[in-house]
Amino acid sequence: MSFHIEYPRTIPARRPGDFAPAAPKFQVRWSAPVTTVVADYIAVQRQPSDLGAERAFFDRARAAFASPWGPDCFDEVRCTDEAGFANSIVIAYWVDLTRYAAWKHRDAFNGWFASPDREKEAVGHWRETLVVPYDRVETIFSEPYYRAGIARTNGCELEPMYVAGYFGAMRDRLPISAVDPLDSPHGDEAPEGGFDAGAGRRIRIDVPPNVVNIRSGQYWARAEGEQLDDYYANLQPKLDTGMAYLKDHAGTTGCLSLRSLVALDREGNELRETSKHGYFLSLAPLERWAASHKSHLDIFRHALAKRRQYGAERSVVTWHEVFVIGATPSFEYVNCHAGTGLLRFARAWGHGVASP
Amino acid sequence: MSFHIEYPRTIPARRPGDFAPAAPKFQVRWSAPVTTVVADYIAVQRQPSDLGAERAFFDRARAAFASPWGPDCFDEVRCTDEAGFANSIVIAYWVDLTRYAAWKHRDAFNGWFASPDREKEAVGHWRETLVVPYDRVETIFSEPYYRAGIARTNGCELEPMYVAGYFGAMRDRLPISAVDPLDSPHGDEAPEGGFDAGAGRRIRIDVPPNVVNIRSGQYWARAEGEQLDDYYANLQPKLDTGMAYLKDHAGTTGCLSLRSLVALDREGNELRETSKHGYFLSLAPLERWAASHKSHLDIFRHALAKRRQYGAERSVVTWHEVFVIGATPSFEYVNCHAGTGLLRFARAWGHGVASP
Repeated sequence: MSFHIEYPRTIPARRPGDFAPAAPKFQVRWSAPVTTVVADYIAVQRQPSDLGAERAFFDRARAAFASPWGPDCFDEVRCTDEAGFANSIVIAYWVDLTRYAAWKHRDAFNGWFASPDREKEAVGHWRETLVVPYDRVETIFSEPYYRAGIARTNGCELEPMYVAGYFGAMRDRLPISAVDPLDSPHGDEAPEGGFDAGAGRRIRIDVPPNVVNIRSGQYWARAEGEQLDDYYANLQPKLDTGMAYLKDHAGTTGCLSLRSLVALDREGNELRETSKHGYFLSLAPLERWAASHKSHLDIFRHALAKRRQYGAERSVVTWHEVFVIGATPSFEYVNCHAGTGLLRFARAWGHGVASP
Repeated sequence: MSFHIEYPRTIPARRPGDFAPAAPKFQVRWSAPVTTVVADYIAVQRQPSDLGAERAFFDRARAAFASPWGPDCFDEVRCTDEAGFANSIVIAYWVDLTRYAAWKHRDAFNGWFASPDREKEAVGHWRETLVVPYDRVETIFSEPYYRAGIARTNGCELEPMYVAGYFGAMRDRLPISAVDPLDSPHGDEAPEGGFDAGAGRRIRIDVPPNVVNIRSGQYWARAEGEQLDDYYANLQPKLDTGMAYLKDHAGTTGCLSLRSLVALDREGNELRETSKHGYFLSLAPLERWAASHKSHLDIFRHALAKRRQYGAERSVVTWHEVFVIGATPSFEYVNCHAGTGLLRFARAWGHGVASP
């Protein structure tokens, strides 16, 4: 028996009637109770040519993660942003808040990150820590044989599930959606995002509740022949079109930030494994895009068609993890350019930091 | 049917065998689901003679709380601290995180609080906002007829309960204690607390998880004759002795801060209603004190004896609410003296704030 919680519904499910998909999808379930998950995104922001900065940062993070309080698992990824900077990111996962806090308190990595020295370097750093109650987490994997992100934490399995294949399934999979509409306290409108004075400074951003963090992944390392060709010819361009639409129409899609991450091996080589990492003001505008816009419908229908075509032989895996933020630690941007993450919202949600 | 959640236990309850108290105590239960509670402690710190500062602050808070997104209820209280300053505090409660965040985003009170002007005044201000998942909340009331604190939020009742009368009952009433030992990430030892440079500055403190916030109340406005005399002659001095012990032995009791609050009426007159407001590093040291030290045993035994003596005629009410912190917004101290709340831990947990 795996752990899960459910609330008695006061808000109807989105599932239309008794709809059930023909085949299951898969979701993360832990055997022992998990009340909070932590995903710590920590990055160095650098010139694309400066691979030494990436190497030094990853080495430092690896050493820190080897601590007895270190994460269950972590990913090393790379992202080139719109400003032309490369961001080398570690994404570390814990399913025990106390252990995470002990790591943060005890490991020298965190003192290094907090040091004012970081504000005066040639590179920037940022940290987006997500501390999320279990009832605000949902995951989906298209296939049961591949794990990524939080699915690699200790004591979990990918279990078959049927809350999928219709618009609103993402919301229905979030336990809290049974009792909370998860609206943004900002209504439909993100605040002004014109802050651009992050250079040489440490800025913290208090993210409002119900902001959606989504990491949506693609894994095609096992694909060959026809399925591999189809990935490059069809799925990848459709994903790129969808990403571009979300960014270009932030006002209606609620898109606050969207990054394209490439997974790396231990030597820093790019793998056939990517993920899109986004923040949205709330679920509702993301759902409206997903249910109605061609750029998502193309992705959705393509995924269904290929699953139908190949069945259990499907070798391209898609997955995502969604964390709907409740109260979470401040995000932190140190000596970063204006387009980094949520930094541009500093006037509404942020403040500068000085040593105590 | 009231809302509640329970986890399948992986950690045994503290209840000894099948112990049950002879009479019930009472706890807050809401009819609709509540996933997060918010208690916002906001204060002006002033000279005891400066009642004008209190009046102006309370007037401003009352106007702000009248907003459509305002709290379900709030208390106005006063506390004179060890440094000789008076602190006039509003404690506002919400049981809907989105509504709280909308209030914080929309109401001008919060811009006023955040303004750098607050750093240059003759008075100080502080704010300790508790955003706590339901599974980290427990309450107890000795009598069913009197409500205080979070028990005055909308849609709740005081329900009889029998998880009481033994050491460890407080922990057993916390749903999360079934699956989480709620240890401090600091082990048993609070960090150094020597920071004393809060004057003229805005300092934010990131409170580590599993810090216990307790508000423990006394209400004797209805007491007369023998019970009133007993309150002043016995219960009040025993409470004062217990408070003094906790503060003087912070190293073993985990006491980080402890305030003695007096409730006020609308005109600022002191009522026969007080509460002790404390922060402890974690549950364990507080439990050790409660189970073993004379200063708590005296309070505990006195309460039991009086309940036995007077039964339903008991006119002195005691109650508490406990919030075990998970991830919560930073506490904020603006132009405050070194002994304010958790400010002295700024070197370990805090940072100064500058405008973005």
